[in-house]
Amino acid sequence: MTAKQYDSNNVFAKILRGEMPAHKIYEDEDTFAFMDIMPRGPGHCLVIPKRPARNILDIEPDSLATVARTTQKIAKAVVKAFNADGVTVQQFNESAGGQIVFHLHMHIIPRFEGVALNPPGGPMEDSTVLAANAEKIAKAIA
Amino acid sequence: MTAKQYDSNNVFAKILRGEMPAHKIYEDEDTFAFMDIMPRGPGHCLVIPKRPARNILDIEPDSLATVARTTQKIAKAVVKAFNADGVTVQQFNESAGGQIVFHLHMHIIPRFEGVALNPPGGPMEDSTVLAANAEKIAKAIA
Repeated sequence: MTAKQYDSNNVFAKILRGEMPAHKIYEDEDTFAFMDIMPRGPGHCLVIPKRPARNILDIEPDSLATVARTTQKIAKAVVKAFNADGVTVQQFNESAGGQIVFHLHMHIIPRFEGVALNPPGGPMEDSTVLAANAEKIAKAIA
Repeated sequence: MTAKQYDSNNVFAKILRGEMPAHKIYEDEDTFAFMDIMPRGPGHCLVIPKRPARNILDIEPDSLATVARTTQKIAKAVVKAFNADGVTVQQFNESAGGQIVFHLHMHIIPRFEGVALNPPGGPMEDSTVLAANAEKIAKAIA
């Protein structure tokens, strides 16, 4: 595979620039966390770097390390917020790897005993539910 | 969920202590990479921290950052080694989250257009295949 370029017209770049709305959970100098609008389970959220990066194949190692730290912070928070039994973390690279939006993102999905993930790709969650979940997770951040 | 303790009798702790064999790919001061013996696709491998950590809920943030850096190194290497079209990265926490061995690990799975993942849980791959793949990935590390 030849390395592919970052395209700054992707949806997450637009969210970072404030050109599209998102249900924000957390933000620091390097990273941004918000709700996935097509959740594979209640509380499914995303962590992205603020710096442009298509995926794990091109991200600067220091930027990836900041994403990992925020992912841990959010993973702990979702377990607390939803009283979850576990957490699934996923990160997809290129279409063949499951990637749909081409700005690196970590999926963080609270899990519950005996409950399978919803299939990927929808439906879209109601905006009021997403807003409430974002607030719940934000409050649970230590 | 109440926080769960690290159990040093897990299989990956035994591999780190040299009490069990593994098809090693890479090692540095903080991390260790080796082949998954029940691959969900050719080249499926794992990155673990050397320090004890059950999962993302208890790992020291600095240790997780080193795991992220090695994960990137190995993800780039598998794409090169297998001429893959993409990479899927997964990290499971607690049984409900998909975790089976309770020492934090990142799954790194080379992906190919139109090829689904094998189901989790086996069968075991032939040892000679695993050894050849480990060598192939090790050689592809930049």
